[in-house]
Amino acid sequence: MSNVLHNESKKEFQLERLILFSDAVFAIAITLLVIEIKIPEVEHPTDSSLLQSLRHLAPKVLGFIVSFILIGLYWTIHHRMFGFVTSYDKRLVILNLFFLFFIVLMPFSTGFYSEYAGPMVERNLKIPFSFYVLNFFGLGFMNYLMWRYISNPKKRLTVPAIDEMTLKLAKLRSIVVPSIFLLSLPVAFITNVRTAVYVLLLIPVILTIVRKKIKNKYKLAASN
Amino acid sequence: MSNVLHNESKKEFQLERLILFSDAVFAIAITLLVIEIKIPEVEHPTDSSLLQSLRHLAPKVLGFIVSFILIGLYWTIHHRMFGFVTSYDKRLVILNLFFLFFIVLMPFSTGFYSEYAGPMVERNLKIPFSFYVLNFFGLGFMNYLMWRYISNPKKRLTVPAIDEMTLKLAKLRSIVVPSIFLLSLPVAFITNVRTAVYVLLLIPVILTIVRKKIKNKYKLAASN
Amino acid sequence: MSNVLHNESKKEFQLERLILFSDAVFAIAITLLVIEIKIPEVEHPTDSSLLQSLRHLAPKVLGFIVSFILIGLYWTIHHRMFGFVTSYDKRLVILNLFFLFFIVLMPFSTGFYSEYAGPMVERNLKIPFSFYVLNFFGLGFMNYLMWRYISNPKKRLTVPAIDEMTLKLAKLRSIVVPSIFLLSLPVAFITNVRTAVYVLLLIPVILTIVRKKIKNKYKLAASN
Amino acid sequence: MSNVLHNESKKEFQLERLILFSDAVFAIAITLLVIEIKIPEVEHPTDSSLLQSLRHLAPKVLGFIVSFILIGLYWTIHHRMFGFVTSYDKRLVILNLFFLFFIVLMPFSTGFYSEYAGPMVERNLKIPFSFYVLNFFGLGFMNYLMWRYISNPKKRLTVPAIDEMTLKLAKLRSIVVPSIFLLSLPVAFITNVRTAVYVLLLIPVILTIVRKKIKNKYKLAASN
Repeated sequence: MSNVLHNESKKEFQLERLILFSDAVFAIAITLLVIEIKIPEVEHPTDSSLLQSLRHLAPKVLGFIVSFILIGLYWTIHHRMFGFVTSYDKRLVILNLFFLFFIVLMPFSTGFYSEYAGPMVERNLKIPFSFYVLNFFGLGFMNYLMWRYISNPKKRLTVPAIDEMTLKLAKLRSIVVPSIFLLSLPVAFITNVRTAVYVLLLIPVILTIVRKKIKNKYKLAASN
Repeated sequence: MSNVLHNESKKEFQLERLILFSDAVFAIAITLLVIEIKIPEVEHPTDSSLLQSLRHLAPKVLGFIVSFILIGLYWTIHHRMFGFVTSYDKRLVILNLFFLFFIVLMPFSTGFYSEYAGPMVERNLKIPFSFYVLNFFGLGFMNYLMWRYISNPKKRLTVPAIDEMTLKLAKLRSIVVPSIFLLSLPVAFITNVRTAVYVLLLIPVILTIVRKKIKNKYKLAASN
Repeated sequence: MSNVLHNESKKEFQLERLILFSDAVFAIAITLLVIEIKIPEVEHPTDSSLLQSLRHLAPKVLGFIVSFILIGLYWTIHHRMFGFVTSYDKRLVILNLFFLFFIVLMPFSTGFYSEYAGPMVERNLKIPFSFYVLNFFGLGFMNYLMWRYISNPKKRLTVPAIDEMTLKLAKLRSIVVPSIFLLSLPVAFITNVRTAVYVLLLIPVILTIVRKKIKNKYKLAASN
Repeated sequence: MSNVLHNESKKEFQLERLILFSDAVFAIAITLLVIEIKIPEVEHPTDSSLLQSLRHLAPKVLGFIVSFILIGLYWTIHHRMFGFVTSYDKRLVILNLFFLFFIVLMPFSTGFYSEYAGPMVERNLKIPFSFYVLNFFGLGFMNYLMWRYISNPKKRLTVPAIDEMTLKLAKLRSIVVPSIFLLSLPVAFITNVRTAVYVLLLIPVILTIVRKKIKNKYKLAASN
């Protein structure tokens, strides 16, 4: 193999290593989520007592499912993002590590949130909700910074460049999500946690609107 | 490297990433199984007291072994399936994530099931058995949906196409397994858990029959 | 890319996937070892009370170190073995899964062994020692079976074939180690655990003798 | 594919496997850090009681963040180092395993250190601090040995050779960091833990000075 080709493939492997390391962190975090669902201990197990113990676990299981979906979602976003990336530099490595920091924190904040999810709505507990929301805000915001960084034409990290519409959409979506997460915090403190949860449920709706607007804009531009 | 070749290898790597991420989840889930086998705490350890404590662990160890084999089996199926896959789309990523969801849930449902496996048979407890069975039903059903999806000729995800007999066999086996799991549930509720376990033990028998029938059918077709 | 080349690289990737999945299991098992070393809880922590609590942890730390080294060793053996493997079949996948089974069991048997390592020597406890030894016997024996299987010329799994001396050495070493582990069991039951540990310490000595003998034999054969 | 090319790519894959195995260990260790942050259990949860429980967790969270950054840092160093490595031998595999040993130990020493971080400063506890520092000393020292080994021209593990300045800088930095960690130990025992922590905070300052000096020296040499 010529030296040039070797260096080329070495550099490619270095980027792949960055990506596969991230994948391992994703995989472990998503699997550790289940560790927080402790197996119920029932002295005299009967079907009805075990069913009831499972019912007590319901908020934990729900929290597990929600976090599994959200981490899975961010994995697909990371997967898509690095589908464009063809080179890396030190700063991208560091941005990625900060992004992974919030992934690693997920099993804790999911556990904390779902431990108090039952009373949280009844007693309107804001602390576990805030912790969870701040974790996702951090994750989403780092994701936004990464989209911004890799698409910076001066850095030449994505060759060929990402097409304008795709990039605009990716950046907008990646900033809209953490913004709504952040917005839900004052809503929780001014009104209550239940209302704040409804605010979060707006995310898919708003994302759909954003997508349509962007696509229309680019269609118009194309037809002019 | 030419741009075309680069994009080709990039796309290939994106598919590999999807696969290796799945592998990491498989590996962690299969290794976490052991965490539920807690080390026995014996105040005044003697050989006989430790042997007895191990005997108490027997259902846990058995549950661990069964789940290890089943996850290992689904890994080999996943491995074989993606041996055919040459491309991917968003929906395959999502189907795969749902499949992994049931893998991730395994350490919990194995722990829950084997915690009550002893009394389960004696006292005929249906809840832990149902939970375990539903987990494997979910896993098997997602597996079936994935076989169906990747072999959809319109999607062009497997080029060259999987040969007809192999595909038919894979799809049939992947739907037979979760069906029998599902069937064992009414059996457990109508009769008892022990009988339902026997139903599950039919799986290898039925799979062998299915395989023979399919192979004969294709031999006949070939000889005509 | 031509179809032939693509299939070739696909098959290569399928083998790589088998290997990387094994690596992930190795990595998780070796890292989970540390989980059994629980952080000491000291009511009124002073330097001397903490030092003492660390001293109580000493057998756990020792067990951790021994198992780390042994798993690390088997990883390097696995690494070397698959350096020869150029193809795979279903049976190799299954042999490898059984091999991994004993890797996954390591954090438990190490924890169990080192929990009772202090009293084990004093009170001559044979059960935790036997469990640990049987785990390594299983690991070593599977390893031997794998060397035998991949080097079976009919299977054509290693092309070019492993040179005779290397293979002979690898097979002999891989059967010597589990044999001595197995031998240490009757020694422990007839005499005591301490003597059995000394038997295990013979392993490196015997391996060195074996290596020299084999090398001499092949040198003689070459010079004739 | 020709046999030569195949062997070349096989050898390359063997090196990649060594690297990806290390990555998996890194990823698991960095993710397990969070496990030591136990979810607070509050009998009658209110926002203020939960906030207080989080405040009690603060040293744990801080320890988690510090260790995350340090492991992340050593991952980037490992990533950079193996960017130069083009071949490997048995000794590099072993050095790497010892390096990973100290990575695997991190979740324990971080947990131990941060469990007693609060009283450590108040009551001037030296044991948890020493354990943590020794762990990083071991990590840093192994890292230094690895830089030294891979750059040994006789071994031909990095082809083309690392340029002199880069190598000198890497080696110097990799020996400066563990040296200062080691130095902080007598400082802690002679004065107190707080002062020793300040010594550690000198690391970035000293690294900056070292880098400038080396770069100036090579600039001077180049201009002569």
